[in-house]
Amino acid sequence: MENLTHGGNWAGYEEQYGKAPLDFSSNVSPLGLPAGVRQAVIHSLQDAERYPDPLCRRLRRAIAGAEGTDPLWCLCGCGSADLIYRAVLAKRPRRALVTAPAFAEYEAALALVSCRTERYILRKEEGFLLREDFLEAIAPGVDLVFLCEPNNPTGRTTSRELLLEILTRCRETGTLLVVDECFGSFLDDPGQHTLRGQLEEFPNLLILRAFTKLYAMAGLRLGYCLCSDTALLDAMGAAGQPWAVSGPAQAAGVAALAETEYAQAVRTLTARERPWLAGELARLGCEVIPGEANYLLFAQEKPLLEPLRRRGILLRGCGNYHGLGDTWYRAAVRDREDNRRFITALEAILKEETP
Amino acid sequence: MENLTHGGNWAGYEEQYGKAPLDFSSNVSPLGLPAGVRQAVIHSLQDAERYPDPLCRRLRRAIAGAEGTDPLWCLCGCGSADLIYRAVLAKRPRRALVTAPAFAEYEAALALVSCRTERYILRKEEGFLLREDFLEAIAPGVDLVFLCEPNNPTGRTTSRELLLEILTRCRETGTLLVVDECFGSFLDDPGQHTLRGQLEEFPNLLILRAFTKLYAMAGLRLGYCLCSDTALLDAMGAAGQPWAVSGPAQAAGVAALAETEYAQAVRTLTARERPWLAGELARLGCEVIPGEANYLLFAQEKPLLEPLRRRGILLRGCGNYHGLGDTWYRAAVRDREDNRRFITALEAILKEETP
Repeated sequence: MENLTHGGNWAGYEEQYGKAPLDFSSNVSPLGLPAGVRQAVIHSLQDAERYPDPLCRRLRRAIAGAEGTDPLWCLCGCGSADLIYRAVLAKRPRRALVTAPAFAEYEAALALVSCRTERYILRKEEGFLLREDFLEAIAPGVDLVFLCEPNNPTGRTTSRELLLEILTRCRETGTLLVVDECFGSFLDDPGQHTLRGQLEEFPNLLILRAFTKLYAMAGLRLGYCLCSDTALLDAMGAAGQPWAVSGPAQAAGVAALAETEYAQAVRTLTARERPWLAGELARLGCEVIPGEANYLLFAQEKPLLEPLRRRGILLRGCGNYHGLGDTWYRAAVRDREDNRRFITALEAILKEETP
Repeated sequence: MENLTHGGNWAGYEEQYGKAPLDFSSNVSPLGLPAGVRQAVIHSLQDAERYPDPLCRRLRRAIAGAEGTDPLWCLCGCGSADLIYRAVLAKRPRRALVTAPAFAEYEAALALVSCRTERYILRKEEGFLLREDFLEAIAPGVDLVFLCEPNNPTGRTTSRELLLEILTRCRETGTLLVVDECFGSFLDDPGQHTLRGQLEEFPNLLILRAFTKLYAMAGLRLGYCLCSDTALLDAMGAAGQPWAVSGPAQAAGVAALAETEYAQAVRTLTARERPWLAGELARLGCEVIPGEANYLLFAQEKPLLEPLRRRGILLRGCGNYHGLGDTWYRAAVRDREDNRRFITALEAILKEETP
């Protein structure tokens, strides 16, 4: 049997039901692929016969322009997941620290190099927030720390003060701090939270970013990372094939960075819909974690996955996250129409007699 | 400085000269992206917001149908180069054997796991053919062998008899034999040369295949491998991110497999143009290796790369191949018009007084 760790199993749904589901299990912009990005991809097909530029030169310049960094501090990947593996393969940590729950690919990548991985448990009683004692967990000998800001699947963020302490601590212990900001652009004020401004001072900081979520282009596969340690980026470039980023993805990325209105519209929508969805989930008796991204983690005793699936809706069950259990779910924040459909289906399921 | 190991550096050319070069440095079909593949990619953009199916279910069924194998014996990757790295990361060889010259990514991938790699030298005096003593090089303790059939950059193939002996020898020594058949579809009779029929009998055989070259879709990134050892394929799947194959690439692959007329046209063109190009190169005093794929390896004392580049043509210099030197070049076999342009430029360069 072939199993899947993550949400977004729409292909399996289509195979079973013959139609596309409403997907609340993966967290991407509900506004669809921006028209300019679509056009750029189609235009790029005139070069489909060519190998993509392994150095992503044009795209990296566009990213550097948007981020206000040096293009040499930027490496692109086939989605940010590609860069997680490359970071681990380049750094070859013998000991690493992750939070739990968090995105499963951190541990999957660390397992590939047989790294001894410690889990720092985020507790429900503390709202799944990182505590001060995380600093103590960054012991000498810990080569790498993965931190997801905002965290997936909780949507919580760490205070800037604590983040800076973590960075400083990691520098003291010679630890690479990988901060996954893939959902950072969904925060109400992304500029306030990002550690981008710390790149120069902290060469031990690697920031992961994605195009996937904000620009609804998960299918195209494009992510990037920022780091002032260019030797590390070189090693990451060598830790896999040279042509990981397709031509269409490179063209899409350049076009996406020009979609500032689209990006603002997504943020406005998320800021409006997140509290609505959280309120509705709470009204239906779910325990909702106050996330700040475009998804919400919530608990519900009644099994939801199959009943929702039968109603054409995919939800992310969180039973396979370390630190969570089968009563936890993660729902994407979509537009009002979709959110309403989801809540209506959920309400119907919760009203049913348990068999 | 950022350097490139491979051919196909058209992006760098465009940056310097402001226009696209005629690219003889990468070996793809000169017939361009098939119209059906182009349409399939554009159609796939309606699902761009979705994560691609990590299991590539539809594509793998299509491949299995075309190859006459079980879909479970097939793993898709972001180009076959992705699968080279995954094979090495999954197998973790401590000792490996490659030929020289051969595709540089084999050694690059082996270096990533600090594998001790031995090079079996293909000698010019023997037409760069594999000799019987290759069997002795497959000593007990050699965990993995990379073999490229036809070989890149020589275009030579190994006799079926010797290939079967190598396979049997590898089984005796517990060695994984990775046969890269990425250029196999350009042979005059691909079915005669492929080891696909040996998959069931030899679970130690992994065959690499690409869509890149035959269907002129290098920019889209799609390759696959075939192996009857499904545990190895599972390990390769876990040796990197789950979503390596983009949605457009999956759609392109399904559509490409229906392009049987296109594929035959490419083979017909290659079979016609290869001898013409070889004849012209010989006429100009180059030493031409009798390759059987869609590229030709040749030697020429006079430096060619820069003069051709100034004339708008990219050629692959082979100075960075182990076992070759700066006097060796690899030229793609393109259509008659392109080939003529290349030969005309070459002739002009060779007639010039050496400064």
